[in-house]
Amino acid sequence: MKLLRYGEPGAEKPGILDADGTIRDLSGLVPDLAGEVLHPEGLARIAEADVSALPRVEGDPRLGPPIAGTGKFICIGLNYADHAAESGMDVPPEPVIFMKATSAICGPNDPIVIPRGSEKTDWEVELAVIIGKKAKYVSEADAMDHVAGYAITNDVSERAFQAERAGQWTKGKSCDNFGQIGPWLVTKDEVADPQKLKMWLTVNGETMQNGSTETMVYGVAHLVHYLSQFMTLHPGDVISTGTPPGVGLGMKPQRYLKPGEVVELGIEGLGQQRQDVVADK
Amino acid sequence: MKLLRYGEPGAEKPGILDADGTIRDLSGLVPDLAGEVLHPEGLARIAEADVSALPRVEGDPRLGPPIAGTGKFICIGLNYADHAAESGMDVPPEPVIFMKATSAICGPNDPIVIPRGSEKTDWEVELAVIIGKKAKYVSEADAMDHVAGYAITNDVSERAFQAERAGQWTKGKSCDNFGQIGPWLVTKDEVADPQKLKMWLTVNGETMQNGSTETMVYGVAHLVHYLSQFMTLHPGDVISTGTPPGVGLGMKPQRYLKPGEVVELGIEGLGQQRQDVVADK
Repeated sequence: MKLLRYGEPGAEKPGILDADGTIRDLSGLVPDLAGEVLHPEGLARIAEADVSALPRVEGDPRLGPPIAGTGKFICIGLNYADHAAESGMDVPPEPVIFMKATSAICGPNDPIVIPRGSEKTDWEVELAVIIGKKAKYVSEADAMDHVAGYAITNDVSERAFQAERAGQWTKGKSCDNFGQIGPWLVTKDEVADPQKLKMWLTVNGETMQNGSTETMVYGVAHLVHYLSQFMTLHPGDVISTGTPPGVGLGMKPQRYLKPGEVVELGIEGLGQQRQDVVADK
Repeated sequence: MKLLRYGEPGAEKPGILDADGTIRDLSGLVPDLAGEVLHPEGLARIAEADVSALPRVEGDPRLGPPIAGTGKFICIGLNYADHAAESGMDVPPEPVIFMKATSAICGPNDPIVIPRGSEKTDWEVELAVIIGKKAKYVSEADAMDHVAGYAITNDVSERAFQAERAGQWTKGKSCDNFGQIGPWLVTKDEVADPQKLKMWLTVNGETMQNGSTETMVYGVAHLVHYLSQFMTLHPGDVISTGTPPGVGLGMKPQRYLKPGEVVELGIEGLGQQRQDVVADK
């Protein structure tokens, strides 16, 4: 299933894409795409529904992030060997984790907002894993039972805030509109192998990132297992699994986003995103 | 006012401490201590209520964290000069920020749970600032308008997870029950000067930390201003402002928590916390 949320920010309704690519309203069936609805049993109830009988959503509404109630927006750093190299870092001996503020989360086509004082706003196409079922101390073998599905994230990053403004990456990762998620939560049954997905990102139509989850260092099942050794993962939590090469930071000379530019990104089977780059008011 | 939440985890009700120290039920007045209720206008409505007419809460219920709906649990690192010195670090040229998982948040007297594989679980008494009103790009002069009040936090930290397990502090800061908050949200009108509060922490009755917010490097107003340059702060967000000297990491030899120990901590005017240390199941 391709689940989504549509409507104005903060007032999104749950929806589902039907076989023709039309949005159908799910709000008669579930209150939102959050909490227990993301549990395997919750998703099974949606899967049983006759989608063609659900109300069609007319027009071309804004899409919000495809899940609500995200408590943690966890990211994995340097999780593609080539990206670590372009960043001048070694592949870490175990996953590097950091948090983005959940207030950075926005819809897949919402603008990238360059914060005041920023000169190094950068892009990162990433595969996001959406947790569906509480996970604590889970084995790698059982880890996938806790995954609801996948989405695209743009882990927008301000490199000066991240690395030149006194320790820890948080402040370069957490700005408003620095976390586009979507367009859909694609349930895991539709993704045969999350470690074989092509991914790409363009700026003004020029290809910047062109990789595959095949070169991910620590794969999805390992990451869910690994994170669950440190903290309980809850339904709606998002794990953004790192980016392949091709970010602005790694270019010579470095190349960052400017107002008026357009970023587009996609992952095989998960759809695509399009963002206007704007300056903050 | 001293606002609190009481009841079992996940089912807490809002309450207020009356002049006699008795908990009065606030649930007829507000749905929870979250969102708009924390706004100056929301707090003003509670302040107008006749507390003595509210239902008394009998017995000695568990206290939960005094606020709900926390989207961000932001911490300031190395924000006391003496603590930076004992950690072998310099005072940073601007605030160091990192995130704790919101899933680490628990009640003030809930146990400290030592995660599996931990040998270096440590304590940190901290002054927490609770945001009451959305803050973005606020000046230092206006910053306090966005603060609802204060609470105590224990920023429990696993030092090996934090510093010896591949980059970024998140994984040593985010374990379950690593974020006791409370007992109360003390509204800011009751705190004459947040930069003049004595604070202390004992383990098994022995004093470990004995400091004052007077030696904080970056004060409350500056931190709210500073953080709001990077991200929007929302009602219910928690800023834990750093710890004074006396953590286990800084001792020679280092000294960490063991199951069966008892941690108590307090801040002048904000009450105190008491935690049993237990091993994770």
